[in-house]
Amino acid sequence: MDLDFSIPRLGEAKIKSPIQMSTTYGDNIANYVTDDEHILYDIEARPGMSLPDVPRELMLEKAGPRESIFFSPAHVHAGIVTCGGLCPGLNNVIRAIVRTMWFRYGVRRITGIQNGYRGFLPEYHIPTRELTPEVVDSIHTRGGTILGTSRGNGAIADVCDAISRMNLNILFTIGGDGTQKGAFLIAEEMERRGQKLSVIGVPKTIDNDLSFVQKTFGFETAVSKAVEAVSSAHIEAHDAINGIGLVKVMGRESGFIAAHTTLAMNDVNFTLIPELDFDLEGSNGLFAHLKARLERRHHAVILVAEGAGQELMAREQELPDGTDKSGNKLLGDIGLYLKTRIKHYFDAIDMEVSIKYIDPSYMIRSAPANPNDAIYCARLGSHAVHAAMSGRTRTLISQYNNHLVHIPMKMAISKRNSVDPESSLWRDVLEETHQPVLMKNGL
Amino acid sequence: MDLDFSIPRLGEAKIKSPIQMSTTYGDNIANYVTDDEHILYDIEARPGMSLPDVPRELMLEKAGPRESIFFSPAHVHAGIVTCGGLCPGLNNVIRAIVRTMWFRYGVRRITGIQNGYRGFLPEYHIPTRELTPEVVDSIHTRGGTILGTSRGNGAIADVCDAISRMNLNILFTIGGDGTQKGAFLIAEEMERRGQKLSVIGVPKTIDNDLSFVQKTFGFETAVSKAVEAVSSAHIEAHDAINGIGLVKVMGRESGFIAAHTTLAMNDVNFTLIPELDFDLEGSNGLFAHLKARLERRHHAVILVAEGAGQELMAREQELPDGTDKSGNKLLGDIGLYLKTRIKHYFDAIDMEVSIKYIDPSYMIRSAPANPNDAIYCARLGSHAVHAAMSGRTRTLISQYNNHLVHIPMKMAISKRNSVDPESSLWRDVLEETHQPVLMKNGL
Amino acid sequence: MDLDFSIPRLGEAKIKSPIQMSTTYGDNIANYVTDDEHILYDIEARPGMSLPDVPRELMLEKAGPRESIFFSPAHVHAGIVTCGGLCPGLNNVIRAIVRTMWFRYGVRRITGIQNGYRGFLPEYHIPTRELTPEVVDSIHTRGGTILGTSRGNGAIADVCDAISRMNLNILFTIGGDGTQKGAFLIAEEMERRGQKLSVIGVPKTIDNDLSFVQKTFGFETAVSKAVEAVSSAHIEAHDAINGIGLVKVMGRESGFIAAHTTLAMNDVNFTLIPELDFDLEGSNGLFAHLKARLERRHHAVILVAEGAGQELMAREQELPDGTDKSGNKLLGDIGLYLKTRIKHYFDAIDMEVSIKYIDPSYMIRSAPANPNDAIYCARLGSHAVHAAMSGRTRTLISQYNNHLVHIPMKMAISKRNSVDPESSLWRDVLEETHQPVLMKNGL
Amino acid sequence: MDLDFSIPRLGEAKIKSPIQMSTTYGDNIANYVTDDEHILYDIEARPGMSLPDVPRELMLEKAGPRESIFFSPAHVHAGIVTCGGLCPGLNNVIRAIVRTMWFRYGVRRITGIQNGYRGFLPEYHIPTRELTPEVVDSIHTRGGTILGTSRGNGAIADVCDAISRMNLNILFTIGGDGTQKGAFLIAEEMERRGQKLSVIGVPKTIDNDLSFVQKTFGFETAVSKAVEAVSSAHIEAHDAINGIGLVKVMGRESGFIAAHTTLAMNDVNFTLIPELDFDLEGSNGLFAHLKARLERRHHAVILVAEGAGQELMAREQELPDGTDKSGNKLLGDIGLYLKTRIKHYFDAIDMEVSIKYIDPSYMIRSAPANPNDAIYCARLGSHAVHAAMSGRTRTLISQYNNHLVHIPMKMAISKRNSVDPESSLWRDVLEETHQPVLMKNGL
Repeated sequence: MDLDFSIPRLGEAKIKSPIQMSTTYGDNIANYVTDDEHILYDIEARPGMSLPDVPRELMLEKAGPRESIFFSPAHVHAGIVTCGGLCPGLNNVIRAIVRTMWFRYGVRRITGIQNGYRGFLPEYHIPTRELTPEVVDSIHTRGGTILGTSRGNGAIADVCDAISRMNLNILFTIGGDGTQKGAFLIAEEMERRGQKLSVIGVPKTIDNDLSFVQKTFGFETAVSKAVEAVSSAHIEAHDAINGIGLVKVMGRESGFIAAHTTLAMNDVNFTLIPELDFDLEGSNGLFAHLKARLERRHHAVILVAEGAGQELMAREQELPDGTDKSGNKLLGDIGLYLKTRIKHYFDAIDMEVSIKYIDPSYMIRSAPANPNDAIYCARLGSHAVHAAMSGRTRTLISQYNNHLVHIPMKMAISKRNSVDPESSLWRDVLEETHQPVLMKNGL
Repeated sequence: MDLDFSIPRLGEAKIKSPIQMSTTYGDNIANYVTDDEHILYDIEARPGMSLPDVPRELMLEKAGPRESIFFSPAHVHAGIVTCGGLCPGLNNVIRAIVRTMWFRYGVRRITGIQNGYRGFLPEYHIPTRELTPEVVDSIHTRGGTILGTSRGNGAIADVCDAISRMNLNILFTIGGDGTQKGAFLIAEEMERRGQKLSVIGVPKTIDNDLSFVQKTFGFETAVSKAVEAVSSAHIEAHDAINGIGLVKVMGRESGFIAAHTTLAMNDVNFTLIPELDFDLEGSNGLFAHLKARLERRHHAVILVAEGAGQELMAREQELPDGTDKSGNKLLGDIGLYLKTRIKHYFDAIDMEVSIKYIDPSYMIRSAPANPNDAIYCARLGSHAVHAAMSGRTRTLISQYNNHLVHIPMKMAISKRNSVDPESSLWRDVLEETHQPVLMKNGL
Repeated sequence: MDLDFSIPRLGEAKIKSPIQMSTTYGDNIANYVTDDEHILYDIEARPGMSLPDVPRELMLEKAGPRESIFFSPAHVHAGIVTCGGLCPGLNNVIRAIVRTMWFRYGVRRITGIQNGYRGFLPEYHIPTRELTPEVVDSIHTRGGTILGTSRGNGAIADVCDAISRMNLNILFTIGGDGTQKGAFLIAEEMERRGQKLSVIGVPKTIDNDLSFVQKTFGFETAVSKAVEAVSSAHIEAHDAINGIGLVKVMGRESGFIAAHTTLAMNDVNFTLIPELDFDLEGSNGLFAHLKARLERRHHAVILVAEGAGQELMAREQELPDGTDKSGNKLLGDIGLYLKTRIKHYFDAIDMEVSIKYIDPSYMIRSAPANPNDAIYCARLGSHAVHAAMSGRTRTLISQYNNHLVHIPMKMAISKRNSVDPESSLWRDVLEETHQPVLMKNGL
Repeated sequence: MDLDFSIPRLGEAKIKSPIQMSTTYGDNIANYVTDDEHILYDIEARPGMSLPDVPRELMLEKAGPRESIFFSPAHVHAGIVTCGGLCPGLNNVIRAIVRTMWFRYGVRRITGIQNGYRGFLPEYHIPTRELTPEVVDSIHTRGGTILGTSRGNGAIADVCDAISRMNLNILFTIGGDGTQKGAFLIAEEMERRGQKLSVIGVPKTIDNDLSFVQKTFGFETAVSKAVEAVSSAHIEAHDAINGIGLVKVMGRESGFIAAHTTLAMNDVNFTLIPELDFDLEGSNGLFAHLKARLERRHHAVILVAEGAGQELMAREQELPDGTDKSGNKLLGDIGLYLKTRIKHYFDAIDMEVSIKYIDPSYMIRSAPANPNDAIYCARLGSHAVHAAMSGRTRTLISQYNNHLVHIPMKMAISKRNSVDPESSLWRDVLEETHQPVLMKNGL
């Protein structure tokens, strides 16, 4: 797919922003961001290379408050919806959106849609919730989302009908890949209906697997909590006879949490991720390497991303069929599968091992954001508001090359981000674990 | 069984203690504890009651350093062994024993037996580990036990042969009910063989279910960590549609962790413990009360001790046979069982629920001791040394009625401690959860 | 002063308690506590001693729900006031009182007096705050007190006038020594006026220095936080050249926090408490011992309670005059004093040292209660309600010999609790720090 | 000063790296980094702008393992030195350097220089410390630096003499601005002497104020800990009558910690940083705004960076003279100054306030790195090794535009990084605190 970072707009921004900022540089007062300010997307360079003039669609538009805005604050009715699984920082984002709307733009009608897109569907009779600075004042100290969540997008037409009935002209969608696909379809449908709706997404994926989003909120907190589980697994493994600590972490299609957790803790001996298939049996399979490690050190820790080993389980017909309500393919439970298979392997060769399996997923998802994630969420939320008020739509707020930028939803939902086995990240994981570069036989 | 708190001794204590203390009260210098100092065991009283003179065997002997000791420090070779499952504080106890031995009594031969009693058995070829203040200096910042652990007592005769070969005259056994039963048998066998071995136990049971031990070390830390899991379950439950958070905690035969966690967190709606059977079906069963709770509040948290509901599973033939290596009856997995049964129940009545099951056991067991447990472990360890040096044997160190005392092993291993459903503890749990006093039909 | 633990009552309890409990033992349903149930206060014993019948006034009455109560719940208007410095757990106690009142007794008028006793005084125009289960639902996750606090008791007559105007018949006073003295005077004055007011105190002293209260709430949390400061001081000291970490913790008249922190962390080399005077100069003074320690190990940590060394500063006329609003004597700042004096000492002998001074007091006081303190606060709060409803007055709720009991305010405010230098606690501190038993010259 | 990011090298890298990596893209095996790989430094762009070909010296060279290296591992003797104040993550960096040296390159002689550059100076008789994987195995769980630290660079010639005596050919300098200036001079002097010494710096500044280093290690951890102090200050302020919480955090010349802490916590009402002068008196001074805030809300939190208000104190002659051993100008203590001045102001207008001052600096500096910092430190350390082995010198490892790159020391030490009052960071701080854009009169 061709790259095109052009940002859709609802129309011309003609209204003076109520935010008082400077247009002068050097007066120690912050300035509006102009529509011309961009950063380069591709920053790789080689001496001697000739840089052609970079076309506009390959630049990333900077996010931030504009001097002129599209919506008159008095006429704005904004909705906020949180979808999919829990992730640290959801409440921080909600809080930042509400406070920026209220205090900076003077918007007074902000409605929380409860339990995801389902909250739009009349058959569920889910009430909405009015959001004010008082309501959101201290929600950031609590994990989860005060709006609740659910999976699935529902019928786009029904959602749009509800949006029309509510007279929303701005909708903030906090969610992952599936949610933003839904948001994109909603925005398109409203456009078809000739209604001005700004749809701005705040990308949420605890797995950090969204494209064009170098770091998703909640990811660092998730790694911090995963580190605790690995630390427990290490102690349990170390203190038993041939102890094996097995920890499963999130990561349906990408191994970012597993990789970062490995680097943070230094107690992991085998990191298994969806991006790299592996064998169990054979001289270069996991079992042989695990056995060698136990013979050498008498304990081992395995960290597995939930999406790893699906190819392996498929071969053994251990996979469920179908998808969940978010449209995600149902995964086989690689944690329980490995636990069982490892036990059988060592039983068969009559070697005593003690396996301790930890699945900390719910304890990770529901944690409150750590301070660094809290800052990030606060900035994502306020910049989402600036984008919406300026009339952008079908746009995500993202951090790229160290800047907060606008990303067209169309680009972000086109493919998933994953750990590149040839990257410095994975190289560092291998250096840390000392595991084989590839655990496949016959290579 | 009759109460008898008389403490066995190896012989007369004739040696002057190397610890310099005072024998004068009022000089601001701590005093030796005399063998006469006791506290009352039964302190319940009613006005007007006549207190008969309490016989010696119903008093608890105070622990602490004696002016005269039995062993000559230069001739002591002490062993330390840790057995059974991990528990916060094991390393703190080891550290305190080693430091008190070394710095207070000048003992220089202290040997760590590795991987539980198995470390005594020659067929396993497990090396021992010399323990010095340097080795144990910072081990208390780490969870688990540096000596490793295992389940089971092995053949007592073989263990005693090893003790004789090693010339141990003091053995510290850090472990639970089964471990102290083994320790008692070892002490008896050595006595039969005419060898002077002081066997001093430090009671370890994360479940807090040892008799005559009002609080076991690591219990508070365990509750702290369980609280985190319940907090996660509450958020997951609250933010989903009819969310049910289900948390399983330790407690094979007693519900202390579950009860205390309930009181600390105030997010639990149903606390299920081994001491109280319950029904699932019927108008006074868990399902009916859970359904009512969901209809009223749309979310619920269930906290279940691992030993709860075994009678229920037995009725449905869901129980495994046999025992583990510690001689504990194998338990059915009440967590997974409840998860499955609850799902089926709500599927059958076509009510959408979302169940999130958390089993934080390994993350609880392997945590380092919190400061209050750290203090307790330090004092248990040093008092264990005082008991051993004074020639006590077959004795546990315990806190009772706010004092550190000696408890005969024979008493402590005679029965288990459990939550009394008529106690103020359980009364407070019911007040907090608002759950029915009993969830049994036909009462 | 003679011991007398008789508990004052407002009159006969004739009303059936709305709490449904059992009067049968053995039915697995908790029972009411009868007025006859007591525990022994003095439990020290010696074999052969003859125990005379213990008179009623030397027994401690058990706290808990009574079958008959004094107040009709419909007529109760209860006030809650929090006084003095912050302490972990204040909100937990408030929450427990409100919930027990509301859910167990059906009381609907509960008023929070804000900013301590000052909230009663009309000249300050401080509004009261209605307390309901909704208001207190999640306050326990936050440190401090939602009612605010202040120092000082104000004019008793004015406070009593306000109580009469508000028609309070129950007043819960959460505070320390000074607060409970005030509470006692209020109760006496109201009695003189012929008005039925039950005054029930929940003893709060982060220093743990109240008599007849073996453990005050918040103390464990305070120690946990103090441990973090000591750990920092240790690292700062260790990593510098002749580094000296100096930490000041709370403890105006008692060294309990300092002593427990020392035992929990094992990084302290000198623990200085108010109970033991010490010299700076001379061959047995702090400076000489500190110098020796630095020469030997190149780093040292000193932990000082805020009330330590006052005699020393008085000798050097470094003490302020007067008292604070709580009537506490103004203390000299022993932390800054030691920092300065130590620096001068080593400057004078031309020895390079690096002093890092940490005063974590406010970070300790404002922490939320840890789980064990949370449980304790919950139980103190609910038992305070039971005591009030039963018509007790001038009574504190306390834990003694492992039971929750009633203590007459008169006894508790008669003297302060302090660290006994001859106790096992202080003995363990000396063993841990290896500091001299006494640091006074010429003994 | 002109930008020039050319990286100095000791000579041609002709030796085959012992690290086995791929030179093929697409084989799922990580590749060496080639000397041609760079990223753009300036990535700001505007549509329609013409990008001239970027000269090599304006590109940043990517860090990472090279296929050919300069040093033969068998002949390498590497030194590591840590200088200046403590910072979270020092031990993580040391650990990563040692492990990468040892396991990846097979270097066996790694020497820790203790107590900063002073460890090189013979007059101090400070022993060096041999570093192996065993020594560094678990040091990352502890704050501070196992090598100790000190301030000041000492005489460069003496340091170089020591380096020659030790036959070091690689020196890793972990420290801030002053340290890297020293490192630069050492490298120059050794070059003058004709000795091949690779000097590679890992930039350490808890203040985050080094140029060309977008994020320094330990900074996030520092913010996390500062957040705790602010949270305490907020509770103390909130629960008192006109409570003012005053917190001083690090930041000699830059307000990054103060700004980030403000955004993470949302409890701060006034953030004061070195980059922006402010008045105390006058209608637009701090006092007037603070008074207005108290009248409106009855509590306030002020967060001040240690370098703020120096101009103010200079005007009032409250500043000390001279510099510390690192050559840093001695700062006036703005925390104590503000505390005193605020008290006087409110005393003078007879308004009761309660000021609680917290200085958490030592507790922040000595904390262990949080997981995200741990990862960053690990990567900085390993990339420092790759740089050294490849023959780079006078080079820092830095993260820029999301890539790990080489920065010439000469550039990094040329000026300090500071908070731009016109940046989005400061804009977000103002939005959060609602404080005046500038607190200066007469603007």
